[in-house]
Amino acid sequence: MNPSALHTPSPWVLAARAEKMNPSVLRELLKVTERPGIISFAGGLPSPKTFPVEEFAAACAKVLRDDASAALQYAASEGYGPLREMVAASLPWSVDPAQVLITTGSQQGLDLAAKVLIDQGSRILVETPTYLGALQAFAPMEPQVQSVASDEEGVDIADLRRVQAAGTPARFLYVLPNFQNPTGRTLSETRRAALSACAAELGLPLIEDNPYGELWFDTPPPAPLTARNPDGCLYLGSFSKVLAPSLRLGFVVAPKDLFPKLLQAKQAADLHSPGFNQRVVAEVMKDGFLDRHVPRIRALYKAQRDVMLAALAQHMPPGVTWNRPDGGMFLWARLPEGLDAAALLPKAVDRDVAFVPGAAFYADHADARTLRLSFVTASEQEIQQGVTALAAVIQENMA
Amino acid sequence: MNPSALHTPSPWVLAARAEKMNPSVLRELLKVTERPGIISFAGGLPSPKTFPVEEFAAACAKVLRDDASAALQYAASEGYGPLREMVAASLPWSVDPAQVLITTGSQQGLDLAAKVLIDQGSRILVETPTYLGALQAFAPMEPQVQSVASDEEGVDIADLRRVQAAGTPARFLYVLPNFQNPTGRTLSETRRAALSACAAELGLPLIEDNPYGELWFDTPPPAPLTARNPDGCLYLGSFSKVLAPSLRLGFVVAPKDLFPKLLQAKQAADLHSPGFNQRVVAEVMKDGFLDRHVPRIRALYKAQRDVMLAALAQHMPPGVTWNRPDGGMFLWARLPEGLDAAALLPKAVDRDVAFVPGAAFYADHADARTLRLSFVTASEQEIQQGVTALAAVIQENMA
Repeated sequence: MNPSALHTPSPWVLAARAEKMNPSVLRELLKVTERPGIISFAGGLPSPKTFPVEEFAAACAKVLRDDASAALQYAASEGYGPLREMVAASLPWSVDPAQVLITTGSQQGLDLAAKVLIDQGSRILVETPTYLGALQAFAPMEPQVQSVASDEEGVDIADLRRVQAAGTPARFLYVLPNFQNPTGRTLSETRRAALSACAAELGLPLIEDNPYGELWFDTPPPAPLTARNPDGCLYLGSFSKVLAPSLRLGFVVAPKDLFPKLLQAKQAADLHSPGFNQRVVAEVMKDGFLDRHVPRIRALYKAQRDVMLAALAQHMPPGVTWNRPDGGMFLWARLPEGLDAAALLPKAVDRDVAFVPGAAFYADHADARTLRLSFVTASEQEIQQGVTALAAVIQENMA
Repeated sequence: MNPSALHTPSPWVLAARAEKMNPSVLRELLKVTERPGIISFAGGLPSPKTFPVEEFAAACAKVLRDDASAALQYAASEGYGPLREMVAASLPWSVDPAQVLITTGSQQGLDLAAKVLIDQGSRILVETPTYLGALQAFAPMEPQVQSVASDEEGVDIADLRRVQAAGTPARFLYVLPNFQNPTGRTLSETRRAALSACAAELGLPLIEDNPYGELWFDTPPPAPLTARNPDGCLYLGSFSKVLAPSLRLGFVVAPKDLFPKLLQAKQAADLHSPGFNQRVVAEVMKDGFLDRHVPRIRALYKAQRDVMLAALAQHMPPGVTWNRPDGGMFLWARLPEGLDAAALLPKAVDRDVAFVPGAAFYADHADARTLRLSFVTASEQEIQQGVTALAAVIQENMA
């Protein structure tokens, strides 16, 4: 505890955790990059072309026509029953709807997991790099966050063993196995099998975050880690990438032992997620809507990835490297030695193109040469134009 | 820290705070009392008759027709600009829209305040009794909660001085001044002036929770505490009682020093509150809709309060006492000596009537004879029938 008054006339004393809170680098950056005329590869924003607007409009009207009294009233903290059943039925392992907790976006699942699993000073493990929002959600519970080395196939198992053995047992390892934010990489089948076996052997719980899993381009990703060991994993999912982000709906699938604690944390956090939105989503999803809708998102995003890959190959100077994601929204690139992505950003913005410097996504030992490029928000023409401008900025700064 | 494994084969270790989390007494009770045929005075559910269904339907259609790409996309953590402006303009003191943070129900305002202001072991002060959901929202940050004696006019100033002097300075006093949940009581003008002066003198910040303030029956309540000392108060409001709960929208008005920390906690908790809902609410509220709508809610609830007061006067045996709230949703009653409201509840449920035992609302030293009766959810006929049944159960148990 290190309370300190804000300034003399203020009566407020901040909690120690609040002293450590800083503005989200990412969101502050996004503000700059949102000015008109900027081609932004920075945001993690789904393409508005994928929003099923007509279906939402019809569902809003139907829910309010058929059942307004219930749809607008306070509701159960667990979530809307039919939606919990749809979620359970959609997953590729046996899930009881009673294990499904509807959350206010999958971001809230991270907040609830942190409250239930992290004591001040608890060790928790993350990939290198990892989702910035997870680091922010865990931070208020004041854990000691440690990075596990990771390569293009995901978590390095030998380093996981080393890190786990180097201190008190970690409370969990947080992993985002499919088309990861920020890198776009996917945990390979071989690595999943090894990670699942290693975690079981070490008694290390896993938090598996899967907001992008449905957005595969050619073949579905390997089975979730949770499907391999449901009692040892907490699974997080989202409707933001397959329907729309602004409804703020996601879900947690919890082992039966953990569910009641997560539910109590949920009640205390916001009573329940918006019941109206839950009914609208259930209405849209019934009759297999996602089976028709998601393939359209996959095709769109695959085409945009291909445009970005082609533009990068055509324009980037030698020494710039990047990967080829099999799905999702992001591509991960690395600048030649001597360049710093954060220093490059203002110069890129001067040329009307934006990205996110990768350093924000590291718990420690950031690689300042990395950057995250989203290929889903900008149009194909904008992608070509933006990559051309970015390549020129890099070229100039290499000189 | 007192971690403990759930059981042998489980790898999960719970945070100490999770060990202390227990199912919400209130919500567990509500489940029992939700069976068909029960007349429930238990829930804090607004009357569905007050939901502006047509207006919501028109607003949903308009928002999706005019601006679906933005309305369904990720949005700023602060909230939707026009809604923040409407909130600021609606308050009876000078509020900059930049001080307004839109939250996922006002319950989330409590969660965010707890994260920003409470360290493990910090002293915080509450009224006697107080809102159960606030105790639950503060609990994960592991404060030491202390009750300040309160009477029918609200917080006892002499006891506040005594409690504040009896230990380390409290981080804040949490107060719900208008038509309090659970008691229905209102902090009087005299007491507000005294509390405001005393808090300023002691350097004690106030969290002022005002979900019911618009629901006055004859005259508006006195000016908010925050209006008297904006820099020393955090103000929480809600759309749940004037529009509909299931949208999960509330707001916080924060001193400029605190706002950035609350915003960062908000980003980490759920990125932002549902943007679609915020636009729908702004659309419904424009052109002064609440000025026409809220008087209808006031009239309905006042009539239902009067029916309950008349039924209580007609049927309750001697020794039962109750108050006469000037607004809101709840009335507070007390059983004769020797009776226990929690013990009485199952017997009442056998007679198809339910209430909430008051003991749940005390941080300590609960008064087991108290009960909370909501007069807004049941119809007038149900209120008469339910009070008759409840009076009979009390009479039998006095014998």
